Amino acid sequence: MSEPSRDVLETFENPHPHRDYVIETVCPEFTSMCPKTGQPDFGTLTITYIADQVCFELKSLKLYLQQYRNHGAFYEDVTNLILDDLVAVTSPRYLQIRAEFTPRGGIRTNIEVEHVGEGYGVE
Amino acid sequence: MSEPSRDVLETFENPHPHRDYVIETVCPEFTSMCPKTGQPDFGTLTITYIADQVCFELKSLKLYLQQYRNHGAFYEDVTNLILDDLVAVTSPRYLQIRAEFTPRGGIRTNIEVEHVGEGYGVE
Amino acid sequence: MSEPSRDVLETFENPHPHRDYVIETVCPEFTSMCPKTGQPDFGTLTITYIADQVCFELKSLKLYLQQYRNHGAFYEDVTNLILDDLVAVTSPRYLQIRAEFTPRGGIRTNIEVEHVGEGYGVE
Amino acid sequence: MSEPSRDVLETFENPHPHRDYVIETVCPEFTSMCPKTGQPDFGTLTITYIADQVCFELKSLKLYLQQYRNHGAFYEDVTNLILDDLVAVTSPRYLQIRAEFTPRGGIRTNIEVEHVGEGYGVE
Amino acid sequence: MSEPSRDVLETFENPHPHRDYVIETVCPEFTSMCPKTGQPDFGTLTITYIADQVCFELKSLKLYLQQYRNHGAFYEDVTNLILDDLVAVTSPRYLQIRAEFTPRGGIRTNIEVEHVGEGYGVE
Amino acid sequence: MSEPSRDVLETFENPHPHRDYVIETVCPEFTSMCPKTGQPDFGTLTITYIADQVCFELKSLKLYLQQYRNHGAFYEDVTNLILDDLVAVTSPRYLQIRAEFTPRGGIRTNIEVEHVGEGYGVE
Amino acid sequence: MSEPSRDVLETFENPHPHRDYVIETVCPEFTSMCPKTGQPDFGTLTITYIADQVCFELKSLKLYLQQYRNHGAFYEDVTNLILDDLVAVTSPRYLQIRAEFTPRGGIRTNIEVEHVGEGYGVE
Amino acid sequence: MSEPSRDVLETFENPHPHRDYVIETVCPEFTSMCPKTGQPDFGTLTITYIADQVCFELKSLKLYLQQYRNHGAFYEDVTNLILDDLVAVTSPRYLQIRAEFTPRGGIRTNIEVEHVGEGYGVE
Amino acid sequence: MSEPSRDVLETFENPHPHRDYVIETVCPEFTSMCPKTGQPDFGTLTITYIADQVCFELKSLKLYLQQYRNHGAFYEDVTNLILDDLVAVTSPRYLQIRAEFTPRGGIRTNIEVEHVGEGYGVE
Amino acid sequence: MSEPSRDVLETFENPHPHRDYVIETVCPEFTSMCPKTGQPDFGTLTITYIADQVCFELKSLKLYLQQYRNHGAFYEDVTNLILDDLVAVTSPRYLQIRAEFTPRGGIRTNIEVEHVGEGYGVE
Repeated sequence: MSEPSRDVLETFENPHPHRDYVIETVCPEFTSMCPKTGQPDFGTLTITYIADQVCFELKSLKLYLQQYRNHGAFYEDVTNLILDDLVAVTSPRYLQIRAEFTPRGGIRTNIEVEHVGEGYGVE
Repeated sequence: MSEPSRDVLETFENPHPHRDYVIETVCPEFTSMCPKTGQPDFGTLTITYIADQVCFELKSLKLYLQQYRNHGAFYEDVTNLILDDLVAVTSPRYLQIRAEFTPRGGIRTNIEVEHVGEGYGVE
Repeated sequence: MSEPSRDVLETFENPHPHRDYVIETVCPEFTSMCPKTGQPDFGTLTITYIADQVCFELKSLKLYLQQYRNHGAFYEDVTNLILDDLVAVTSPRYLQIRAEFTPRGGIRTNIEVEHVGEGYGVE
Repeated sequence: MSEPSRDVLETFENPHPHRDYVIETVCPEFTSMCPKTGQPDFGTLTITYIADQVCFELKSLKLYLQQYRNHGAFYEDVTNLILDDLVAVTSPRYLQIRAEFTPRGGIRTNIEVEHVGEGYGVE
Repeated sequence: MSEPSRDVLETFENPHPHRDYVIETVCPEFTSMCPKTGQPDFGTLTITYIADQVCFELKSLKLYLQQYRNHGAFYEDVTNLILDDLVAVTSPRYLQIRAEFTPRGGIRTNIEVEHVGEGYGVE
Repeated sequence: MSEPSRDVLETFENPHPHRDYVIETVCPEFTSMCPKTGQPDFGTLTITYIADQVCFELKSLKLYLQQYRNHGAFYEDVTNLILDDLVAVTSPRYLQIRAEFTPRGGIRTNIEVEHVGEGYGVE
Repeated sequence: MSEPSRDVLETFENPHPHRDYVIETVCPEFTSMCPKTGQPDFGTLTITYIADQVCFELKSLKLYLQQYRNHGAFYEDVTNLILDDLVAVTSPRYLQIRAEFTPRGGIRTNIEVEHVGEGYGVE
Repeated sequence: MSEPSRDVLETFENPHPHRDYVIETVCPEFTSMCPKTGQPDFGTLTITYIADQVCFELKSLKLYLQQYRNHGAFYEDVTNLILDDLVAVTSPRYLQIRAEFTPRGGIRTNIEVEHVGEGYGVE
Repeated sequence: MSEPSRDVLETFENPHPHRDYVIETVCPEFTSMCPKTGQPDFGTLTITYIADQVCFELKSLKLYLQQYRNHGAFYEDVTNLILDDLVAVTSPRYLQIRAEFTPRGGIRTNIEVEHVGEGYGVE
Repeated sequence: MSEPSRDVLETFENPHPHRDYVIETVCPEFTSMCPKTGQPDFGTLTITYIADQVCFELKSLKLYLQQYRNHGAFYEDVTNLILDDLVAVTSPRYLQIRAEFTPRGGIRTNIEVEHVGEGYGVE
């Protein structure tokens, strides 16, 4: 199966770019494959961002994430890769992903990663 | 159907304008139409503000929000437009709207937007 | 019916005035009348304060709040008035009231107001 | 606006008619208009049934329920009418509707109505 | 103050009397006075009934219950009296009241009372 | 310290003895002493009963239960003894006690005991 | 992709066949494809059974359910098919499946289906 | 390591054997070893019983269950074995064990098993 | 009964004094007597501290708190006194007590008090 | 039994070392032995860290923690020792452990300890 590609992601023009406002998108149906065991993993992704000129189109986000359904990916890696793709496509002022995975072997793991756009510093 | 209009919004005099205090109004019965699919959307709006000279009258707020019942509006846009209307009518010291929409296609979205009145900076 | 009066409120000497400590009193049985509709309103008051020389006596607080049972009062106004009365009687270093009212017309409202005693600044 | 019509409801063949099994469909986004006040009402419908020869198609159920969006209907009446329509279209072995409406005037109401198909008695 | 009177209660014709269905009405804002201490009591009443020829009108139920606001009444007694009044006015096939009162002296009390209409036996 | 005595328990006349109705009294502040270790035990007692000619007076119930504060008593025994006392004083049609104790040594215990009055059989 | 096959399911000998006891297995990570839209569906399966001579081996159950990951299946159909497979492989005294699917279009659906082994009647 | 032995279990005389009452003991800290993988398993045991002449002593129950800490045991087997031991030592009128184990491989399992004493039939 | 004494409190050497780490101890079974009414009070104490050279020994803390069982103490006073005793015995870098008492007369009260060791400033 | 050893811990290369991101690992199945009483203790460890060049491998973390199963360890000590081991093996930019233990004698204890890597200051 081919690699997940950011080309699937579509955007629309931010209707209120003059204002910093927060968009929070929660995706509780994320699933990928563990590259080591070949077993499916499940998790909830919460994407929180402040758009600059464009916003994600939600249906394309869904299709983008579905590309991971049969794709092998470690927790730490996949969360960072999705962040890289979303940043590349939308150049946001700020973007954070929190990924919460279901337990494996009695242990569960969450990953939190953020991108701060150039010139947009959190004080 | 005509556009929602801020003319419906009524205000009353802030009974304690000498003091900065917070009014939080939660509206769990907001509904509008998706402009793309024509399907109804549902959400909860939480309006948090510090009034200056006037406060919203709650019944007029309800009627104002009901104007969106058969009106097409994207999440990101409608939340900003409601903020603009509330600010225009009451010139508050501070006003924030958090809108939490019900899931569509397994994904749910929340929008948070705020207005800071002139001369009223959050430190 | 006569106006609610702060004369009902009794105090006792703060047993540890040399120390800033927080007293939180939750009153889930507050009720008053809507001056416009004549219908009863219900709410929960949470009073959080740092006493200076005196503390509220709880039974007198209960009797003070019961004076509002058949008294007309708007949300925004009554919360500020109770704060004024509590501050007048106890001159606290800090006092905050959060009032959470039950829904009316599908909308619910919370009010949060605070008093900072002279020379006691929150940084 | 025209009356809601059961003609919108579509069905598909029950894939396992030899077996009594339970289908539970929860619709938390039901809304109609109060015929007395003209104000919108909101509720959650839970439809629980044992199909005989046909099942509801879910998208057509959604469109059927959306017909009530701008339609006046009392709680007690509308719940019974929806039951009548669903029974007429699918002739189920058993069908129950529980409707839970949001509070009005500090009071909330739930309606529960059921239909038992001929020859299918609950002991 | 005069006694609470069932004359306030209004009814409307049961729109579907051919069918036994359940109407559940939850009133979380009930308050009365303790006849012994003169202190206010607070509780939630849940009225569950199967109407025969008439249903309660909800606004009149609210006004009926508000008559107890400044009326002295013991828990066990008031719950039975409200049941008597509702039965007298609507002659239901079945009616149950569950009253849940807030704690007093570290103890809380619930009362559950029911009426079965003549010829309507619960097996 | 003397034994807990049922003489403390007071009753009042059942205001509606012609009807079987349920009174549920929840006491989350029960405490006694473990006879083996001398350590305090804590629990919640829920008393559910159908009165015959008399009901418990709640304040006297509180004083009755406080007699166990410094009294040694095993879980299984004390729950049965309280039931015996309540039955002796009120001769109820039905009375049940459920006692839920806080954990000891990683294990927690609940006791449930009931009395059915003569001629009052649960089918 | 080939059809899901019950051949994957492995069993082990029931260690206590002389006794009717209940085994409840909860699988919150079930996912399949909607045959109409090609979109993934997600759900939780709860399998409750009384084994006769053999029990399911849990790892093989997991592999069996993973066969549906890229397989098209309607809610009503797939739940019945899984029941058929589990019954065929283990001939249980009783087996029930409750499947709870995530919302689609604001509506969510649960399916409950059961098999009663010959000579094992629930009274 | 030696086998868990029921000899550790101690009993005390039932203080109220003339009455059928229910004792519920919840043990959330049960742990044993999986015989296949050598990995630890964790679960909560809820033991519900009606004693005849003797009750379990709780401290000895704790020590009895700790014998499984380094002992290999399958879910279905261990729950039945503990039931057998408790029944052998106390000859109860009724005894049920519900065991709820933590998830493994995204699947969790609960076992429920009961013993009915001779001449004590649940209708 | 004699006064509660801090002499009961035992300590052990902090095993990692080179590091500031937080120890949080929750005591949900605190009970004392109201000096005014003679009635028992109940509460949960949460002690949060950063030890310096010594830590509390937990069993001695339990015995220390049990001294209040039959001792009269006002909420505001007893929380401060316990803080004073714990500080005197352990000289911690930081220590906070939050006491949450059960409701009395429909009102509940929480007290929060802290001690900052010399040279250990919260910025 | 030998001492728990950090040699069991394995690491893998941080796939995104150029970015500070947070990995949170929750282990609800931690168990050790109380050195004083010989009784088992149970707790949940939450490890939150920002990796530098390497991350923990989760399976080796599980095996590392299982070494404490039959090992005597005080709460305060064991939490600090695990921190020391994790820091020694991975040299993280930041690492925090929060350990929440189950109640003993009606009291429960949580420990929170953190390590800040050299040159990585929390402002």
